[in-house]
Amino acid sequence: MRVSELVERTGIPLATIKYYLREGLLMPGTATSATQAVYGEHHVRRLALIRALTEVVGLTVQKAGEVIRLIDSPEPDLFETLGKAVAALPPYLDDLADDYPRARAALERIGQVYDPEYAAVGQFERALAAAEAVGLPMSEERLDGYASHVMGIAEIDIGGVPAESPGSAVEYAVLGTAIYEPILAAMRRLAHQDLASRRLAAGSTSEQ
Amino acid sequence: MRVSELVERTGIPLATIKYYLREGLLMPGTATSATQAVYGEHHVRRLALIRALTEVVGLTVQKAGEVIRLIDSPEPDLFETLGKAVAALPPYLDDLADDYPRARAALERIGQVYDPEYAAVGQFERALAAAEAVGLPMSEERLDGYASHVMGIAEIDIGGVPAESPGSAVEYAVLGTAIYEPILAAMRRLAHQDLASRRLAAGSTSEQ
Repeated sequence: MRVSELVERTGIPLATIKYYLREGLLMPGTATSATQAVYGEHHVRRLALIRALTEVVGLTVQKAGEVIRLIDSPEPDLFETLGKAVAALPPYLDDLADDYPRARAALERIGQVYDPEYAAVGQFERALAAAEAVGLPMSEERLDGYASHVMGIAEIDIGGVPAESPGSAVEYAVLGTAIYEPILAAMRRLAHQDLASRRLAAGSTSEQ
Repeated sequence: MRVSELVERTGIPLATIKYYLREGLLMPGTATSATQAVYGEHHVRRLALIRALTEVVGLTVQKAGEVIRLIDSPEPDLFETLGKAVAALPPYLDDLADDYPRARAALERIGQVYDPEYAAVGQFERALAAAEAVGLPMSEERLDGYASHVMGIAEIDIGGVPAESPGSAVEYAVLGTAIYEPILAAMRRLAHQDLASRRLAAGSTSEQ
């Protein structure tokens, strides 16, 4: 299809498509003359992915580009590729520490394998420090309880990883990490409400 | 203690303390003359709470004030008070809908009691719509699996609610909801890494 059809199919303005082409997020079309090219279904799918990463997940075009480069050219080690791709998601740590003592102690306690360079280790450290700062430090009981349920959730997630190609695994890992996180946060708040309504027996205002 | 000692004890500047007094976040001290007042330990604790809500959780002073008013004057119905207090936390929905069909269907499927006015219902709807938008809609299997683990997490949370007073329950609900959310998000990313490293058997780069 011509680029004008690509605009029509996706609803993405021509200037934006040209910008994605220049930045390498969208692969070039097949040139048919010095000034024209044709595009296929994989361009439509790629534009949907760019929109998912930028408009829905909220990444900058630069961060979306990092993910897309990893989808297009996964490194030989898929484990490292997945780690780098997920690190393109917020939260971003501006102050990288040499050590993450709280996160390390917690991960050792729950017996998980982890790469100390992985962005989530720093995120975990910062979140644990914040809990201490407000006077609600993670207890060992809470850590153990959370860990077993979180592992159950992660098993559901990992069960859905597509096996076709490393690129599709990277795409699923990034989108799935980002998209199901707010779902889980909302579900937790709703579960609190369900439990609170049952415990407080405030039936008159809470029942459907 | 004099206000100068309160500044020293908490490290919060005098101008900020005066601002919190004016805005009603900090309760007045006991007047000892027309221009002087003395403050107690409850002022120190309150300033720590204000700092937790604003600096650690990241609320605006206005949103922190909403939480503090609910702590100081909980409504007769604790269930409603808790819902309003947790609604002071992000994410905020700027476009309130009349109906949340995806959230409603999901909550009915998993059999939870919920108040349709509760902010988390709208958050759940928006998160479910985002999953659809990126081509990863919540399947019933995922919903059921998530729901049972999230309920397990929520039971741990609810088990920690202090019973001394409605105000302390409100404080715990707001801080605990906010503070443990990023911990759970980081733990999920780390659990993915643990499972991926085991499944991919990429032992050379992933083992500690």
